[in-house]
Amino acid sequence: MAPFHCLTFLTDYGLEDGFVAACHGVALQIAPKTRFIDITHFVPPGDIRRGAAVLAQTAGYFPPAVHVAVVDPGVGTARRGVAIAAGDSVFVGPDNGLLSWAVAEAGGATEAVSLTNRALWLEGATATFHGRDIFMPAAAHLAAGTPLARAGDQLDVASLVTLPRPVSRITEGSIDAEVLTVDRFGNAQLAVTGADAARAGLTPGTTVTLAWDSREQAIPFGATFGDVAACELVCYQDSAGYVAIAVNGGNAAERLGLHPEALVTLTVTK
Amino acid sequence: MAPFHCLTFLTDYGLEDGFVAACHGVALQIAPKTRFIDITHFVPPGDIRRGAAVLAQTAGYFPPAVHVAVVDPGVGTARRGVAIAAGDSVFVGPDNGLLSWAVAEAGGATEAVSLTNRALWLEGATATFHGRDIFMPAAAHLAAGTPLARAGDQLDVASLVTLPRPVSRITEGSIDAEVLTVDRFGNAQLAVTGADAARAGLTPGTTVTLAWDSREQAIPFGATFGDVAACELVCYQDSAGYVAIAVNGGNAAERLGLHPEALVTLTVTK
Amino acid sequence: MAPFHCLTFLTDYGLEDGFVAACHGVALQIAPKTRFIDITHFVPPGDIRRGAAVLAQTAGYFPPAVHVAVVDPGVGTARRGVAIAAGDSVFVGPDNGLLSWAVAEAGGATEAVSLTNRALWLEGATATFHGRDIFMPAAAHLAAGTPLARAGDQLDVASLVTLPRPVSRITEGSIDAEVLTVDRFGNAQLAVTGADAARAGLTPGTTVTLAWDSREQAIPFGATFGDVAACELVCYQDSAGYVAIAVNGGNAAERLGLHPEALVTLTVTK
Repeated sequence: MAPFHCLTFLTDYGLEDGFVAACHGVALQIAPKTRFIDITHFVPPGDIRRGAAVLAQTAGYFPPAVHVAVVDPGVGTARRGVAIAAGDSVFVGPDNGLLSWAVAEAGGATEAVSLTNRALWLEGATATFHGRDIFMPAAAHLAAGTPLARAGDQLDVASLVTLPRPVSRITEGSIDAEVLTVDRFGNAQLAVTGADAARAGLTPGTTVTLAWDSREQAIPFGATFGDVAACELVCYQDSAGYVAIAVNGGNAAERLGLHPEALVTLTVTK
Repeated sequence: MAPFHCLTFLTDYGLEDGFVAACHGVALQIAPKTRFIDITHFVPPGDIRRGAAVLAQTAGYFPPAVHVAVVDPGVGTARRGVAIAAGDSVFVGPDNGLLSWAVAEAGGATEAVSLTNRALWLEGATATFHGRDIFMPAAAHLAAGTPLARAGDQLDVASLVTLPRPVSRITEGSIDAEVLTVDRFGNAQLAVTGADAARAGLTPGTTVTLAWDSREQAIPFGATFGDVAACELVCYQDSAGYVAIAVNGGNAAERLGLHPEALVTLTVTK
Repeated sequence: MAPFHCLTFLTDYGLEDGFVAACHGVALQIAPKTRFIDITHFVPPGDIRRGAAVLAQTAGYFPPAVHVAVVDPGVGTARRGVAIAAGDSVFVGPDNGLLSWAVAEAGGATEAVSLTNRALWLEGATATFHGRDIFMPAAAHLAAGTPLARAGDQLDVASLVTLPRPVSRITEGSIDAEVLTVDRFGNAQLAVTGADAARAGLTPGTTVTLAWDSREQAIPFGATFGDVAACELVCYQDSAGYVAIAVNGGNAAERLGLHPEALVTLTVTK
């Protein structure tokens, strides 16, 4: 395999400990010419779904890369560690669904291995820090040009764990969808693309009614935050292509009490 | 233009989403040899003044660089995106004043363009994420050697939006100034330089009286935190050259209730 | 001295100000080919012991490097700035004990200098930001190949400040130890290695009784979090080789009220 110039890294490790740095140090010894870029290390501890969503919406902006992701509450148990080829990149991490949305976005898995080749692991691998001891060294070897097949036993890609797709149902003039993620600004991203919403008649220029949690609110469907006055709600197609709800200069998720996995309905206002 | 070896990045994006990483990925595809250094991504959402202060006090420590800064509550509205040459560097971001203090520190704008050349944008630029879609790709092209004039339409530098200078008034023996910023340690930086304060008679070795919010407190003017006992207040010239108030081993802003834009008076104690 | 390809950086500066970035900028001008990797900048302000623990448990995963660490409540006072050779690396920072545990882990100091050579400092060094003005430029010069002896006056390594070793006492079937650190996940790491615990009879497969703060709790000694049911406590040898207490999928330090320097006793349950 041709070497990769870029390795990305996403975890729930936070940055207050030395965990992320130890992983960088291990990788640097194996792949000193590879560029490392952190995606985020602030996934809430153990929140596989959040990690999957961030990875899926970010990986596509990189050149061909080895993407390492570790949100791994089952570390040290029977769950497999895997490396998955998809598109022109490779995804490395625990086989718990974390990688599945990004792999699908990249075009689907074309090849996968279980990371069983201990020659690529850090010597003396521990039971609780596979990021440093298994995932990162294996990924760094792949980035440096080791062929995927050398990383371990070939897997049937159909056996890979996948996260359920978030709920969404589209009918004429109406969308039921769950909140996929909430970002730093409090913008609530729904699990429905702007393109699908448009097919249901929800388009910029219309007004939509948001119904959730026994409440209802009419919201203009605009193009950006500044399309409404300060502190007003706006519905828009966000930068990842999904329908989202924001407050211009404020925090929509807090204002409305929306959180990931909450169910909402959007209807074209008559 | 000769290529820049360094590109810096300052935003209010936080690090819990993939926003910063997506920008890095986009830039990496355009300028693979440029070094990227993050200044901060923890500017409070929408706080242009805070972003301007951090950028102005940091950019000068870099080699010639393209400095990208995005605190952009007006994203997608009529406000311009700009690239400004100043000193031996280029500043890229929204034309909302964010860049203005750093540009002034660098010697003032010598040339500026509106980022209208869509050939430098990411294909399919969105209305809500110009950091990823416009500012970063344009900046990466500039870092890779594209001449400034190729980034868009020439602007009159006098038309660039500038933030008002923070309030300060210096008289013999007394200074009125606003709090410019508060740092992680709770040190409150005033909008007056140590040099200006010295001209008013406030120098290390004197005692000053801080008056704010109908309160008064005598504070020794020292050189560093350890010049006073633990938990005591000290006035000093900080590492950016401004007069500041700290507590040795504690948090002055919390103790005194000081926050950015608060007005204080410092008087030489008789 | 042969140049170092890697420079690491650990501080209590946080990432909301431009402090860390200014240090990177200064180093980049001196050692443009060196790779910079941040260990952490979220050491609680002034917490030397926490900084020492993170550095000691992380530095060993890097290739030969210059490790810069700054947690420096005494900045600008008489405490020395030092550079210490240990193993195949160099440690740079204030001589307040911060470096001492990492230096010991690396095999002990073989040579040390006081950073008195002002030719390596940033011009116009301030009294309150030695990270930017002294430690980082001196470290960058060392990384670029300047010999250690050129950085300042030779020191007797026996004169270096060392932090006291954390308390631990091991007897047959029992361990008294203080909590060394608590990580992001709330795992409480005790100041006793798994190897020492094993010699006392505390090994995976046994059940131990944790006594602290007039409370007692029986806990299985496992290998990883998933060895117990969700929300259950587990004792294990952590990835740094120390005995630690965790909750599977939860936060042990919060649940038990454990914090660094708390004293606990672990006894093999009869």
